[in-house]
Amino acid sequence: MLTRQNKEMHYPMTTALSDLLARISPADDGTARAAQRRLDQLTKPPGSLGALEPLVVQLAAATGQITPRFDAPAVIIAAADHGVVAEGVSPYPQAVTAQMVLNFLAGGAAINALAANAGTRVIVVDAGVASDLPDHPELRRAGVRRGTANMLHESAMTRAEAEAMIHSGAALVAKEAAHGLDLLALGEMGIGNTTAAACLTCALADVSPEQATGRGTGLDDAGLAHKRAVVAAILERARPQASDPLGMLAEVGGLEIALLVGATLEAAARRIPVVLDGYIATSAALVAAALAPHATAYMVAAHRSAEPGHRAALGKLGLTPLLELDLRLGEGSGAALALPLIQGVTRAMREMATFEGAGVSDRL
Amino acid sequence: MLTRQNKEMHYPMTTALSDLLARISPADDGTARAAQRRLDQLTKPPGSLGALEPLVVQLAAATGQITPRFDAPAVIIAAADHGVVAEGVSPYPQAVTAQMVLNFLAGGAAINALAANAGTRVIVVDAGVASDLPDHPELRRAGVRRGTANMLHESAMTRAEAEAMIHSGAALVAKEAAHGLDLLALGEMGIGNTTAAACLTCALADVSPEQATGRGTGLDDAGLAHKRAVVAAILERARPQASDPLGMLAEVGGLEIALLVGATLEAAARRIPVVLDGYIATSAALVAAALAPHATAYMVAAHRSAEPGHRAALGKLGLTPLLELDLRLGEGSGAALALPLIQGVTRAMREMATFEGAGVSDRL
Repeated sequence: MLTRQNKEMHYPMTTALSDLLARISPADDGTARAAQRRLDQLTKPPGSLGALEPLVVQLAAATGQITPRFDAPAVIIAAADHGVVAEGVSPYPQAVTAQMVLNFLAGGAAINALAANAGTRVIVVDAGVASDLPDHPELRRAGVRRGTANMLHESAMTRAEAEAMIHSGAALVAKEAAHGLDLLALGEMGIGNTTAAACLTCALADVSPEQATGRGTGLDDAGLAHKRAVVAAILERARPQASDPLGMLAEVGGLEIALLVGATLEAAARRIPVVLDGYIATSAALVAAALAPHATAYMVAAHRSAEPGHRAALGKLGLTPLLELDLRLGEGSGAALALPLIQGVTRAMREMATFEGAGVSDRL
Repeated sequence: MLTRQNKEMHYPMTTALSDLLARISPADDGTARAAQRRLDQLTKPPGSLGALEPLVVQLAAATGQITPRFDAPAVIIAAADHGVVAEGVSPYPQAVTAQMVLNFLAGGAAINALAANAGTRVIVVDAGVASDLPDHPELRRAGVRRGTANMLHESAMTRAEAEAMIHSGAALVAKEAAHGLDLLALGEMGIGNTTAAACLTCALADVSPEQATGRGTGLDDAGLAHKRAVVAAILERARPQASDPLGMLAEVGGLEIALLVGATLEAAARRIPVVLDGYIATSAALVAAALAPHATAYMVAAHRSAEPGHRAALGKLGLTPLLELDLRLGEGSGAALALPLIQGVTRAMREMATFEGAGVSDRL
């Protein structure tokens, strides 16, 4: 594998990854200014759409279009298993990951209803589920192994596997973009994956295992204390370095998280905005931003979840969540709930009259 | 006008109003319990939809249906003018009320785009606009006078006018309900109406003019200080009593607010949930709840606005807002933005598989 030194971050990376990162440009400030001028001419008091105004300006800057429209959004649900479940970090058995993949494919999960409500497609990807999954016309296969190793004792995956998953995610987005994808929402499923998200957040957002570790799908107090101890022990073993995001992903990440990192990077390279879901998707965004700082310009935080580390992760990315509903479901559910807000405000930006055009008086 | 004494509140009211209030029943606890049981069987960790779970239980209890659906929502935009604008409480001229009504009818306002995005009709009502409004096939007329009097010096309207506007709002909802209306969102337009909302909130949510008065569509610091003094002086003149909500509405309310009070009461009587928009719609809800305490069971708070008094008003009603985006536009815009959340979670409630049905393992 060809490698070269990354000049800023001082760790080896392949030319393929380096090339992907090099394609990510800053957002377009000129378009942002033009979008702000248009916003201020629309028939509403200046600033009265609150937090949705900087959002629509950001989306303009990201896409390079003053009045962007998103007619072909999709939610990727990346599913994978985690060897660390052997440590008892989740109240649900590992088999649930595969069972929920089948549920997504059958249309019976929350994300199916929420995506349909938002007029959004769901793309289900096996990024490394441990259990057998039967073939299904709607199931994409992208895994390089069936679940990670137990990262309390060894690296979750190899560096090469982490990078392969990044390229899988990037390839998936490239293919969808060729068919018109214009807005990407990130979702995931993986019993045990809040433990990986907590480890990544500790390493990248500089918080303690106490602050980064929550109840996940519903641990009790004793389970939470145990999970915190497991996260602390993993970090003690792996000693992930913020200066080496790929190594960190290999040590304490997840296969679905790595796929979402790649999906985020490819979307950013194509100026397709990325709507983050909860804690796990945001931990993938942290890794993507560590690899390519300009990628944050393309990210929208759908919501802030009940997981305590999510606040720190979003803060590190400089993102303000659209929703705060104490969701803790994953699957892309929060992203799907936020899509109508994004589509609503961009529609208003396109369709509203101006003060002059509508004959409405401006201020006294 | 026939009157009789209201036993609880000790003020005179007509039999027509008394009959409307008597039709409002408590929500159905049995349906709420059945909805909670269904929620807990769906393929998601218990409670993982966060604040949307009590919402869907409330909607079940309100409608009496375990899995309610809302196929025919509508946003009422009630527009009217306020004599108190003579005191300089808004940076916009009064003519903007009528200009914006024409903008709603032409489809050029934010609410038109946001309602279309949410698949929701807009019903525009002239509830007492001061300027001439040409006839338009989509414009409903419900006013009893062209704008209120200047409530700094006299009652905004008479008690009989306030009640007539309540019955206009109720009649509008009754007519729409006969055509299938199943979810009502409240919107308004009226230069100066945050001053009326502040007066009502002071009287009904027990807050000071300082706490209840905000910048509205965009007052500067001096304008805000003046508006607070005007609100304090109005309250000093009118001395509204929480025990007489109809009298309060006449003294310090607005024609569009009175119409929204009636719309809320009729919707509650028909078990149609009511989605509140911002500060003005919520002040109407405060009056409705003062008249008929059970009405709160049918109310959903779409958002908490940038107006400081909105927090106190929602707190008094016991409502938790779905969105906190610092919106301050009115028109029903926040309600339209929240509708997809309501439709999303009720769709999930209807369409999701159960653990047993999908063969997904419950907890370890």
